[in-house]
Amino acid sequence: MKKLVNAPRAVVPEMLEGFVALAPGQALLEGETVVVRADVPAALGARKVAVLSGGGSGHEPAHAGYVGTGMLHAAVAGDVFTSPSADAVLAAIRAVAGTAGALLIVKNYTGDRLNFGLAAELARAEGITTEVVVVADDVALLATVEPARRRGIAGVVLVHKVAGAAAAAGASLAEVAREAAEAAAALGSMGVALGPCTVPAAGRPGFTLGDGEVELGLGIHGEQGVSRVAMQPADALVDTLLSAIVEDRKVGRGDRVALMVNGLGGTPPMELAIVTRRALAFLAERGVTVERAWQGTFLSALEMPGCSLTLLKVDDARLARLDAPTEAPAWPGRGQVVTRRQVVPARSALPTVQGHPKPQPEMAQVRAAALAVADAWDAAEARLTELDSRAGDGDLGLSLARGAAAIRALPERAWATPSGALTELGQALRRNIGGSSGPFYATALLRAARYLASKPVDAAGWAKAFEMGVEAVSELGGARPGDRTMVDALHPAAATLVRAVKEGRTLGEAWAEATRAAEQGAEATTGMSPRLGRASYLGERAKGIPDAGAVAVVIWMKALGGIGG
Amino acid sequence: MKKLVNAPRAVVPEMLEGFVALAPGQALLEGETVVVRADVPAALGARKVAVLSGGGSGHEPAHAGYVGTGMLHAAVAGDVFTSPSADAVLAAIRAVAGTAGALLIVKNYTGDRLNFGLAAELARAEGITTEVVVVADDVALLATVEPARRRGIAGVVLVHKVAGAAAAAGASLAEVAREAAEAAAALGSMGVALGPCTVPAAGRPGFTLGDGEVELGLGIHGEQGVSRVAMQPADALVDTLLSAIVEDRKVGRGDRVALMVNGLGGTPPMELAIVTRRALAFLAERGVTVERAWQGTFLSALEMPGCSLTLLKVDDARLARLDAPTEAPAWPGRGQVVTRRQVVPARSALPTVQGHPKPQPEMAQVRAAALAVADAWDAAEARLTELDSRAGDGDLGLSLARGAAAIRALPERAWATPSGALTELGQALRRNIGGSSGPFYATALLRAARYLASKPVDAAGWAKAFEMGVEAVSELGGARPGDRTMVDALHPAAATLVRAVKEGRTLGEAWAEATRAAEQGAEATTGMSPRLGRASYLGERAKGIPDAGAVAVVIWMKALGGIGG
Repeated sequence: MKKLVNAPRAVVPEMLEGFVALAPGQALLEGETVVVRADVPAALGARKVAVLSGGGSGHEPAHAGYVGTGMLHAAVAGDVFTSPSADAVLAAIRAVAGTAGALLIVKNYTGDRLNFGLAAELARAEGITTEVVVVADDVALLATVEPARRRGIAGVVLVHKVAGAAAAAGASLAEVAREAAEAAAALGSMGVALGPCTVPAAGRPGFTLGDGEVELGLGIHGEQGVSRVAMQPADALVDTLLSAIVEDRKVGRGDRVALMVNGLGGTPPMELAIVTRRALAFLAERGVTVERAWQGTFLSALEMPGCSLTLLKVDDARLARLDAPTEAPAWPGRGQVVTRRQVVPARSALPTVQGHPKPQPEMAQVRAAALAVADAWDAAEARLTELDSRAGDGDLGLSLARGAAAIRALPERAWATPSGALTELGQALRRNIGGSSGPFYATALLRAARYLASKPVDAAGWAKAFEMGVEAVSELGGARPGDRTMVDALHPAAATLVRAVKEGRTLGEAWAEATRAAEQGAEATTGMSPRLGRASYLGERAKGIPDAGAVAVVIWMKALGGIGG
Repeated sequence: MKKLVNAPRAVVPEMLEGFVALAPGQALLEGETVVVRADVPAALGARKVAVLSGGGSGHEPAHAGYVGTGMLHAAVAGDVFTSPSADAVLAAIRAVAGTAGALLIVKNYTGDRLNFGLAAELARAEGITTEVVVVADDVALLATVEPARRRGIAGVVLVHKVAGAAAAAGASLAEVAREAAEAAAALGSMGVALGPCTVPAAGRPGFTLGDGEVELGLGIHGEQGVSRVAMQPADALVDTLLSAIVEDRKVGRGDRVALMVNGLGGTPPMELAIVTRRALAFLAERGVTVERAWQGTFLSALEMPGCSLTLLKVDDARLARLDAPTEAPAWPGRGQVVTRRQVVPARSALPTVQGHPKPQPEMAQVRAAALAVADAWDAAEARLTELDSRAGDGDLGLSLARGAAAIRALPERAWATPSGALTELGQALRRNIGGSSGPFYATALLRAARYLASKPVDAAGWAKAFEMGVEAVSELGGARPGDRTMVDALHPAAATLVRAVKEGRTLGEAWAEATRAAEQGAEATTGMSPRLGRASYLGERAKGIPDAGAVAVVIWMKALGGIGG
């Protein structure tokens, strides 16, 4: 058994301590596994009806999570899947019930009925007026079981809410009990389990399900359901569950309901959201108005994967009970449903200030340089593919060949200004190069373009733009020299270029020096282990050949130098 | 693969629809898997910094659940465990960023860095000032990996909160980015996985773990952790995770932190609460003040079982950011921690008005009758055990023999009044009889006692009290005649008794008639199938012998009649 627990016997007191530690409105009842409202003495003074619930543990956050102003006054926790004793229930009643009496909300299981029922009788013998409402919302066995004998499952949480809000509003015990009983009668639930769960003390799953099998109507303790069926798409399962509920509870066109999509403990939010989507659509198709809906884990079956769906018929009065404020930590809030799908229109690019300036004289040279790079990448495709296949994804040669085609395909107007040309080149490369090369080259070109847009396009300007592009690459991937990436060529090249220009060399001379620095940097990667990205798994095995990305840098730098860039 | 999904390719758009349908503050961005605030145009007008996040899906409720006023403006969802494209990120930036610019909060994975980074550069090219903060909170690989290269895991949610609150407070982009980066630097997380998870498109788990094995420091996509170790108690695992975090992040005596206990998707609330309990104790032992704590599923790894723990160092300013209001549906609220364990003292029984009345003359007969029942139960132990073993739990004979001993042990003062005697008998039986018989007999006796306490104790009074006791049994267990329970004997007996007394028979005559009715009722159970409790699983197999509980009723009714009850 793999569970985040300590001794199986300590599970219940330990988890209650954990819950209560994060709930300033809750307290433990001394000597019992009972969670009560921390303001119990004040609550007693208010002479309002006390609402209690509970049952076996393993259904968290039920029931302790629903203790708080506006919902439950106390939750009595038995051992896992075992009813609490009548004495524990009686202790809870004594602790929270004032002169207005107490309502016990009980799921329909023999043990719970006996122990809560006996506790109610004992409380009455002590002079505490006590009522019991039994919740039996599971419609799964509708063919064979009459409603009064059904199991109580997740829908009980909505009865807690209705009764708790009625009590908080000052209703009498008879009124609170009536509202709770009416809510229980207007409630239907059904679940599907994708797998079993394990009681900590047992240490192994209570049953097994085949690999492609799910059980419809399985109970929250692993009790038998209606049928075992092959796994189906979520939508089909939702339709099956909701069809059974609407048929049994006679929910149809014009009815108003609250919907609860409940995870059974091992179900991730992703799956619950997919279920919610279909449940809303199913009900809309049938003309049922979903006034409120919640998705989450409200009443679990330990770590069981699967979900249950609950519908509660509502009118304005019951809706007001569901909407009433509560501080119970596990109550999910108001549950408003968006009836019309909300979509915000996408905006296209903001207008740029670029306009159509007159082509600058040096642009012919810039274009020729770019085309030379395209030729060089084409020529190097096989070599780059070979290098990248030995220590990388193997896609670099093809990626840059695609980039070459994209450069050649740029329209005339792309070559109007240095900044504009670099922007267009960046956009073209990102659209046409997959893998990581596209984002790196695009980011570098865009960063350089932004710099050149507002600076003089002279030797110092180009050098600084190059340096900024290299910085952008480093920032984007988090690579530094020594990591066996293109940065090992780019970084020394940028440093050399800036320094050489500052020392008075022409751009052509400085570029040649920078290219030599890049070449040395690329060569040095032969002795490096990759430390970033997928290549890092190769470790020492990558040594002996240079990094393909760094070699590609040398290739285009040489091509640019060749035309006197 | 058993998941509540439809086509694997549709998982992301379908779940986003489900989430957004229950979030009135959210909308989908047209044509993208991007969730944005529904008030985006208004938000733009406010000229506040836009805060965005996102990444691969499969981490729900991250990141869409954190979109809302006071937290994120947009969340960009890639396919499961796959970074969204730069174009999707750019579309999100365009949709939500105003003149104050945008901050992108990115988990430290190559794909996310490249695509969010490139999108930032593209946005800048369009004139939108954009900053990127990378979160790398996973301390698991601390021995081998320098901080800047770590993975981003659940702690990113706290960075969302800090940045979102700063933006909502009107801070500039530089200030929001600084606060986010400082929070990211003050953050450490580590997780433990109890099992794998399955990417829907792959259809099978990404890795396997042995039966008794867990992986420490496993990543949120199933990436390798630090070590595989044997399953341990929850407390030991918590200590291991927190020890690594406090060592790495240098958290010690006097430090103030926020704690996040995060379930990885398949972890039930029970287990998280047990983890929380130990985490709080671990930090308290080291003199670390936990200013805020949350438990729940905040950033999952599909349906992976296990958890991660996160510590964020806080000062008053950062605490104010965490406490600031937000309407993001998945943010868990204020996270207040109860530093002193809250325990409410249990109250003993309320004083009753019973007092010590003078023994009434008929009480000698009542006592003799009760002792006769005890003798009869003793005599019938073997027979009841035999019957109950063939169609029941087999414990009825022993239970009633224990009850007999309890009756004989009642003190002299128990026999002062009819009502008092029935109350004492009920209490004695419930304390000494296990199974379901104890609650049934106790509840019946207590109910009858309450009636007799305020009514004349004559033949009509006793008959009515008997009827009320029988009603209590029926109410408690939900059994009706025909269900093969003790009610099949009790119900006709009560009806006969009330009628016979009304028709003028003495109590003794009426009791004899009622006993014959009970006998016939018990005999009739021979042809009934059980429909309640554990015996119901026997179905037709129970037929051919009478119900042991009904037979036991006949036995004590005869005993009472024998002494002229």
